[in-house]
Amino acid sequence: MALIEQVMHEVDEVMSLVDESQIDDAEKVIQKDQRIFVLGAGRSGLMAKGFAMRLMHIGYTVFVIGETITPSIQAGDVLVSVSGSGKTGMVVEPTEKAKTNGVKVVAITSNSESPLVAKLGDAVIVVPGATKAGDGVQSIQLLSTLFDQSVHITLDVLCLKLSRRDHISNETAKATHSNME
Amino acid sequence: MALIEQVMHEVDEVMSLVDESQIDDAEKVIQKDQRIFVLGAGRSGLMAKGFAMRLMHIGYTVFVIGETITPSIQAGDVLVSVSGSGKTGMVVEPTEKAKTNGVKVVAITSNSESPLVAKLGDAVIVVPGATKAGDGVQSIQLLSTLFDQSVHITLDVLCLKLSRRDHISNETAKATHSNME
Amino acid sequence: MALIEQVMHEVDEVMSLVDESQIDDAEKVIQKDQRIFVLGAGRSGLMAKGFAMRLMHIGYTVFVIGETITPSIQAGDVLVSVSGSGKTGMVVEPTEKAKTNGVKVVAITSNSESPLVAKLGDAVIVVPGATKAGDGVQSIQLLSTLFDQSVHITLDVLCLKLSRRDHISNETAKATHSNME
Amino acid sequence: MALIEQVMHEVDEVMSLVDESQIDDAEKVIQKDQRIFVLGAGRSGLMAKGFAMRLMHIGYTVFVIGETITPSIQAGDVLVSVSGSGKTGMVVEPTEKAKTNGVKVVAITSNSESPLVAKLGDAVIVVPGATKAGDGVQSIQLLSTLFDQSVHITLDVLCLKLSRRDHISNETAKATHSNME
Repeated sequence: MALIEQVMHEVDEVMSLVDESQIDDAEKVIQKDQRIFVLGAGRSGLMAKGFAMRLMHIGYTVFVIGETITPSIQAGDVLVSVSGSGKTGMVVEPTEKAKTNGVKVVAITSNSESPLVAKLGDAVIVVPGATKAGDGVQSIQLLSTLFDQSVHITLDVLCLKLSRRDHISNETAKATHSNME
Repeated sequence: MALIEQVMHEVDEVMSLVDESQIDDAEKVIQKDQRIFVLGAGRSGLMAKGFAMRLMHIGYTVFVIGETITPSIQAGDVLVSVSGSGKTGMVVEPTEKAKTNGVKVVAITSNSESPLVAKLGDAVIVVPGATKAGDGVQSIQLLSTLFDQSVHITLDVLCLKLSRRDHISNETAKATHSNME
Repeated sequence: MALIEQVMHEVDEVMSLVDESQIDDAEKVIQKDQRIFVLGAGRSGLMAKGFAMRLMHIGYTVFVIGETITPSIQAGDVLVSVSGSGKTGMVVEPTEKAKTNGVKVVAITSNSESPLVAKLGDAVIVVPGATKAGDGVQSIQLLSTLFDQSVHITLDVLCLKLSRRDHISNETAKATHSNME
Repeated sequence: MALIEQVMHEVDEVMSLVDESQIDDAEKVIQKDQRIFVLGAGRSGLMAKGFAMRLMHIGYTVFVIGETITPSIQAGDVLVSVSGSGKTGMVVEPTEKAKTNGVKVVAITSNSESPLVAKLGDAVIVVPGATKAGDGVQSIQLLSTLFDQSVHITLDVLCLKLSRRDHISNETAKATHSNME
């Protein structure tokens, strides 16, 4: 079997295990009158950035933790934290601090037993792809590749739901897309 | 039909149209004794970064155009350029310049008629997902979402092929993964 | 003479040649009810980012061209473009495009004869530090180091003027500073 | 007195308090056969990036913690950590971890009593500019502005010393400078 097919088989399996009602729960937490912050390390962080960029396209005020113009996060804000293992220090520690300060947390992880889920998530989306910590559906791919792929698609489904709820067309999103490329 | 299912149907369709022999061609261009540079704008740029990070994990000398410690690109280097439309100015212009200077180009695009393919690619991978310019398989998702998802998986298949060719195990990759998270 | 002293002599010389009334002109262009975008390449780009971060601290809506959540720039927005030579393609081309679209431009450069000044700046601050293109006050330091140092201080003086005009105290700025470090 | 003059007076004062022999100590730790990593948060992080970029220009293998292609840091590597207060969690914690693993640390801070100096630095450069934590020479400028400015110049002096030691000319540095801008 060709390698593309084997990899797609894995992605299909993980996505069939994602509970769409959890995406709906996350959708309810994310509202236009709130500021949305995203947080992730490594390739999970890149997926978080891709999500933030699309949220911007559909009209949200959104910031990436660690980028230049990100202000302090405050009570009433929403933090979307992505960590395959649910244990990454650079994700869990700031999320704990934010939670304590009254920030609402959307936790995205492969590990439903992790601190990110057990203690921190106001909404939780479990994406059970293989991670480098050994969580989730097993994979022929390296490290957390399967988790990254599945998180990417999961967050895009969330964006699609948000754009439909908010009546944002492709044309509207296009007008907000960076015009300096 | 649930939205996850609809989206996966789209991704499955695009991936079934990716020609695995084109991934093999790209694999041949990417060699350990060369420096690999990646280039992309917006969400395509994030996919390029995810690819670069994984190349680093499997032992390549790799740089992201626009990041802090990226040196000048020279004859003999390899440039992997990602653009859905194959026309993004910030991708095509530097790629042309690099090509003129003797750099080998791997072009990743949805648009097989674009300048990136027609004039620049020493190897070309066509990933026919919908883009914001209207290329590729149509999609219910916004802008170039379907292209981004499919490029992500395509580049991961390329990484998997490279890691097998180079005999890099999951453990070896883990040891190179950032330990400061 | 110690090296610190020699370098400070250079910085002092350049800063004595910066015309403070040009900083005042830039101050007038930058208003709280407008969106401010910043643009620069290489180390000039890092100086532009430092400026953007401080603008955020003092309450501006500000974006860095090329970062994740930067939307399209529109008529009525302000673009602060930094280029030592005033000729960097990745700065001048987008600035031209923005200018054509009705964006107001603040140009920061060492080269008062450059396209950035001659054609594009609604306000111009000339910071005549040595650049890698050979402009400005000569320097024992490499490439555009002296320009970078002087731009850094010049943009901080502009921030100080803005914060005083807008009555932003250190405490207010501190409250906006990222609390996730 | 014009504001430029007042600010330059502050920078001159801080730089007169930087002990050039501490820069010489740092120079000894930084060697071409080692990998150099840099770490900093916020505007200090931008200064660390500017330093990394220049180290690359003069021929070092250098990585920015948090950027895409940064590998794991190992015994024998060098970590340059910048924190005004010397207490920033996102700087001190990874530096402690690195130190424990046999990494050599160059600590740059305003606060000579801080954990970064007391416990972690193999070489220490104290740059006593005002920080947002209240360290150092007092300033009319906001937050850690005076520290940032002085760190910028201090690290550039270190680069100048390194380039002279290693016989790197302006022309050689220019050839390594990114040619994709």
